[in-house]
Amino acid sequence: MPLPALPSRVSIVEVGPRDGLQNEAAAIPTAAKVAFVDALSTAGAPVVEVTAFVHPARVPQMADAAEVLAAIARRPGTRYSALAPNDRGLDRALAAGVDEVALFAAASDGFSRRNIGQDVETAFAAYRALARRALDAGLRVRGYLSTCFGCPFDGPVPPARVRDLARRMIEEWGVYEVAVSDTIGVAHPGQVDAVLTTVLAALPASAVALHFHDTRGTALANVLTGLCHGIATFDASAGGLGGCPFAPGAAGNLATEDLLYLLDGLGVHTGVAIDRVVAASRAIEPHLGHALPSRVLQAWRPGA
Amino acid sequence: MPLPALPSRVSIVEVGPRDGLQNEAAAIPTAAKVAFVDALSTAGAPVVEVTAFVHPARVPQMADAAEVLAAIARRPGTRYSALAPNDRGLDRALAAGVDEVALFAAASDGFSRRNIGQDVETAFAAYRALARRALDAGLRVRGYLSTCFGCPFDGPVPPARVRDLARRMIEEWGVYEVAVSDTIGVAHPGQVDAVLTTVLAALPASAVALHFHDTRGTALANVLTGLCHGIATFDASAGGLGGCPFAPGAAGNLATEDLLYLLDGLGVHTGVAIDRVVAASRAIEPHLGHALPSRVLQAWRPGA
Repeated sequence: MPLPALPSRVSIVEVGPRDGLQNEAAAIPTAAKVAFVDALSTAGAPVVEVTAFVHPARVPQMADAAEVLAAIARRPGTRYSALAPNDRGLDRALAAGVDEVALFAAASDGFSRRNIGQDVETAFAAYRALARRALDAGLRVRGYLSTCFGCPFDGPVPPARVRDLARRMIEEWGVYEVAVSDTIGVAHPGQVDAVLTTVLAALPASAVALHFHDTRGTALANVLTGLCHGIATFDASAGGLGGCPFAPGAAGNLATEDLLYLLDGLGVHTGVAIDRVVAASRAIEPHLGHALPSRVLQAWRPGA
Repeated sequence: MPLPALPSRVSIVEVGPRDGLQNEAAAIPTAAKVAFVDALSTAGAPVVEVTAFVHPARVPQMADAAEVLAAIARRPGTRYSALAPNDRGLDRALAAGVDEVALFAAASDGFSRRNIGQDVETAFAAYRALARRALDAGLRVRGYLSTCFGCPFDGPVPPARVRDLARRMIEEWGVYEVAVSDTIGVAHPGQVDAVLTTVLAALPASAVALHFHDTRGTALANVLTGLCHGIATFDASAGGLGGCPFAPGAAGNLATEDLLYLLDGLGVHTGVAIDRVVAASRAIEPHLGHALPSRVLQAWRPGA
């Protein structure tokens, strides 16, 4: 049968400056990060995740988080977000004047312990208090739920667990949206279909975003499956930045250009200009020491 | 809404040895080609397009077509096919003992003229006679229809034109299947949906295969759209072989591994073992002078 009616508008959450750069080995100059954020907001991104207020010793790439946020040109129509893992990070994010913070939980204990040293329940209690502080300070709060399609340590993750945790993030933390995330790039449309069928029995599609990696080439097929379910918010990273989890040239984050090629082709409105995203990717690429994995970026030709 | 019921079985037409190698610059030893074909048939491929009986001066890579077909180990359960562009090619294919020949037409005059020096109508008349000869000799005949999703010379191609030409290939040429092909890697699910809605009003899904390139990252999303329409035959090339139409590292043919990752995840039976296809790709890769673009191949780890 033909594809069902898809959402007429989609919001792209541009995570390249944070999720992308955070996973890049080369030290990127602050000025290049600022130019990258400004290029992406100028391209029309409704949300840019600018940086992470994490410990600079742990993630040196994000040590200039405050400087980047101080130097960008804030564009009306773009919300500027940052990751905040704890109270100290939230304090710094508030001081830097973000519009929104992103809080990261995991659906599996194994990943949660390796990533933040706490099991899921302990982390949920801490994030609930952190979200309350952020909301009281007037921020929007977005929740990420990692390992929704499988955990490298615990293996399969039941869709009902994803549903229950996502609902608690909405109801207990007060986040406006949960990014159901494929942290390790294993998701395929069969899983996406199963997870969404379960999650959307408990939450409206408007409270759910999807965050995919293109590690195995399935990212856009996963997005299409999400669109069929009425999901209208997708994370993407300009150029597929952050894309070397396995091998040089291997893909990580879904590339914003690739997502836009799909959505533009489907006639879905995003407000984001693909040619400007390509230009933003081209400008950051020389700082990385490797080619960006976006298929559209590689195929792009002047005037194409 | 959830995905509709998808076909429970899919046939993969393995085009790596022909469509893949034909587009590789490095001269591949005949023995490596033979080993590649044998590895793919052993992996379970129901159809392997082994080679092309084209003029050796025009495509030197295919000059050893007869030698390759003479040296492979014919596996029961695999059909061995070759491209035949004209009577001379068909004579050679028949002498080499193929099970099937593939005939290539285009949906656009611009591409047809550039590729074979004839407009679509002239080519159709010639192929009709060629198909008749092949059928009379007891061969199965498969038809490819190129540029179904856009032509680099003529621009957009109306879906009704694809429908009419595909129907004529079935009815006038006598092919058992038409591979509706995205020659230049521009297809996106919006187009696939529109083309299939039109084509399947005139032809059963069982007479239609889809041939995609992953140039812009949309190949698996296109396949998923095809599966939703009931299409159950897809072309793929091991490793994404043949994948440098634009730039080093850029993707060309949809990789068999990537297609299998999608189909295995959806629970669709193919009979093709993904680990064996990965092994086949790894064995041919050193002969190419560049890394293969398949995402799954790049992410593959022992035991994964």
